[in-house]
Order: sequence, then C-alpha cells, then structure tokens
Amino acid sequence: MSTSAVVLLSGGLDSMVCAGLAREAGYEVIALTVDYGQRHRIELEAAAAIAARLAARHVVLKLDLRAFGGSALTDDIAVPKDGGGEGIPVTYVPARNTVLLALALAHAEVTGSDAIFAGVNAVDYSGYPDCRPEFLDAFERLANLATRRAVEGAPISIEAPIVSMRKAQIVRTGFELGVDFSLTVSCYNADAEGRACGRCDACRFRSQGFVEAGIEDPTRYQPGAPRRSEGTVRG
Amino acid sequence: MSTSAVVLLSGGLDSMVCAGLAREAGYEVIALTVDYGQRHRIELEAAAAIAARLAARHVVLKLDLRAFGGSALTDDIAVPKDGGGEGIPVTYVPARNTVLLALALAHAEVTGSDAIFAGVNAVDYSGYPDCRPEFLDAFERLANLATRRAVEGAPISIEAPIVSMRKAQIVRTGFELGVDFSLTVSCYNADAEGRACGRCDACRFRSQGFVEAGIEDPTRYQPGAPRRSEGTVRG
Repeated sequence: MSTSAVVLLSGGLDSMVCAGLAREAGYEVIALTVDYGQRHRIELEAAAAIAARLAARHVVLKLDLRAFGGSALTDDIAVPKDGGGEGIPVTYVPARNTVLLALALAHAEVTGSDAIFAGVNAVDYSGYPDCRPEFLDAFERLANLATRRAVEGAPISIEAPIVSMRKAQIVRTGFELGVDFSLTVSCYNADAEGRACGRCDACRFRSQGFVEAGIEDPTRYQPGAPRRSEGTVRG
Repeated sequence: MSTSAVVLLSGGLDSMVCAGLAREAGYEVIALTVDYGQRHRIELEAAAAIAARLAARHVVLKLDLRAFGGSALTDDIAVPKDGGGEGIPVTYVPARNTVLLALALAHAEVTGSDAIFAGVNAVDYSGYPDCRPEFLDAFERLANLATRRAVEGAPISIEAPIVSMRKAQIVRTGFELGVDFSLTVSCYNADAEGRACGRCDACRFRSQGFVEAGIEDPTRYQPGAPRRSEGTVRG
C-alpha cells in the first residue's frame, strides 16, 4: 500500500530538499503551503512551481497572521540586510512552527498520511526555539495524543530530515536527489521576479552553502547584489 | 503588575464561563476567536457580543479549514440531530484543538500573556481525543519549548478549568460568576437569529445541564424544537 506524507512547502530551498527526501523515502508527497500573509509572496509562487515539478497534490491554506502583528516577516518593517546581531532574529514569527505543524497535522489526518515532513533546521537558525529537536519530539508526542488516528492505533511521525545538516550538506543532498534549485526562493527581500538581495541572512547562508558544497548556484540575484564570494556567514 | 490571558472564545456557553473564570483569577482577558469556516456563523456574532460584555480585547482570526474538508462542522453535510451513536462524533474537526491552541500560543506570545484558557471538556465530549487532560499537558510542555518566552524563562500555562466538569457544574459555575448565558450559542444547527434546534448533542447536553443545575435556561429555541424536559442525554 502506498503511504503519503504531508510536506510543509514554503518555496525555499530547504523545504524542496525535504520534499525530495520524502519522495525518496517512498511517500506520496502531499504539499501544504500556508499563506500567512508573508511579505515575500513570491514564495507562494515558488511553492506552486515546486509542487508542480514534483507532481504533488498542493493545498494552499490562508491564515492571516497579520491580525497578530509582532514580526518583521509579516509587519511592514524592513528586514535587516546585513546580519542580525545576537539572540533571536527579528524575523521570528511567534509560534510559527507550532502553527505550521498543527495545520499539517490537521491535513495529515484528513488525508490519512503517516508522516509530516518539515524543513526546519537547528544549525543555521539556532536562535529559533521552535527549530530544536526537543521541540519536534514534543510535537510528535502531542500529535499522537491529539488525533483520531492515534486513538485508532495509527501513529504519525514528525520528520525533520535536515534538522542537523549544515547548509552545504542540504545543498549536496538536494543535488544528489536532482532537485532543481532554480525553482526555490530563500531571500527575505526577493523582488517580484523572485530575484534575491544577496545580503539578508537567508541569502548569505544559501550562497555560502553552494560555495562550500562546490555546486553551481543557480540563484538569480537583483542588480547590485554582492557577488557570492563576498558574502560572509555569521557563526 | 496586571497579567493577561488569551481566552479561546467560541461563542458557546463553555468558553464564556471559561472567560469568566480567567477574569476571576485576576487576568486581563484577551479573547481570540478563530473563524475557521464553521457552518454556524452565528457563533462568531455571539463571540463578539460576549467579548463586548466582558470589555475584553477581541481578535478574530480567519483560517479557512474548508480547504481541508473532512468534517460535518465545516463541510456542507447535515449535522446529526438525534444523537450520534458510538465512538468519535462526526462533528469532529481534524486536529482542531491543536490548531486553536497553536494560534492562541502565537497570540499569547505577541501580547505577552502568561496563560491560555480553553473551554475544552473531557466529560460530555469524551469521544474527542484532543479534549483529554493528557493532550493538554502535552501541549503545555510543547508551548514551553516552542516560544521565545520560554527561552527567556517566562513559562506559559495552559488552563482548562472546566475540563473535568459535568455540564450542570459548568452552568452553576457560570451562574455564580454572573455570566449572561443568553449571549451564548451552543447549537450546531442554530438559525440566523441564534435560536437553537433543541435536538443536536450540544443542545441536549446544554439543556440537561440547566435542568440538573436547577437554573432557568434562557436559551432561545426554534419553533417546533422539543421542550427541554423531553431531551435525553446519551451516556
């Protein structure tokens, strides 16, 4: 019997690699993108293109987190372009991964899926509390108390296959899977055509990942963006 | 220092009693209603009226769960009117309490609240896996791993003060708090004026609760609804 997995697909590089890993593990991929009012709406278009390339079912769920405010990713505040200093990044969205995983859990139950794949990563973005393995373990425990599936003895697993990978390892993994990185958008300041700024943390980690992996970077940059060899990565 | 609590306010009797208990416990009440595409939209109007009566801040968050399908509460399927048989009710919304609590957690973090109050009840609706105390404990554990607050040493508590009460006890508690039950709508089949069908499980539990509590039931019923003394409650 074929089994399916709900894959949280943001449109970024990490989530596309994650989807590739879910498919390689034998799951039918059911892609879920949450439209939570993000400023970088080009991400939604990228997610649709990625789902189409994977021939995956794709659900886009609207959730207007802007009613809450509280973050540079959804508020009308500039995202910092040259590194963010210490501590938790200002791009933090409150309880974001809890909300995204909860929605994925609902979709997993409706679709009868056995797993949820999330492209969270505890290495590059270690300032986010909800990217840590102990958070993911706690969510898996919750999921198996929360659902009709659990009551009926069919556990669900929370898979975060890139949680401990450095960016270069994620790039290499995607390369081996044949992932078309040109479809993905990671930049917090991407323009309407999906071209990257080359300066924000997401751009720096991504660019450095390609350099370290020794793999050609197909990212399209905006005019005036720094060449990738100029990028430096914090930490 | 005054502390605040996010209270999940559905517009039903249980959540209004819960809000009253939060206020009595000394919290400033921040009411959160999730508009998840429920069929009984009169609930949303009831929630607004309750928040106004409590002079509470009120946020209505739109989340279109209909994109998922899978339940009589959001799909265009008739809700059973005369009891639902054994097992998990067909009115089950997949992972609903996980989703609602996740959204409340996001709002609690943005508003700096110390607690989340949810009117879940494990007695009358024992068929719902996400109404059980062990589910709520697991969510509290998750919440304290998930948030910036937790990283900074400010734990959040998940309060479900009516989780173990029978309906009559909830009614008595609300009566002692001076809750205006006439503002609340519990019925799954309420009409556009908020009048109850008197036949669905929610009506039966509610009606029987008033009878057992010996308190006058201010619920407005639709023409032709059974008189409340005719109601029988499962279990």
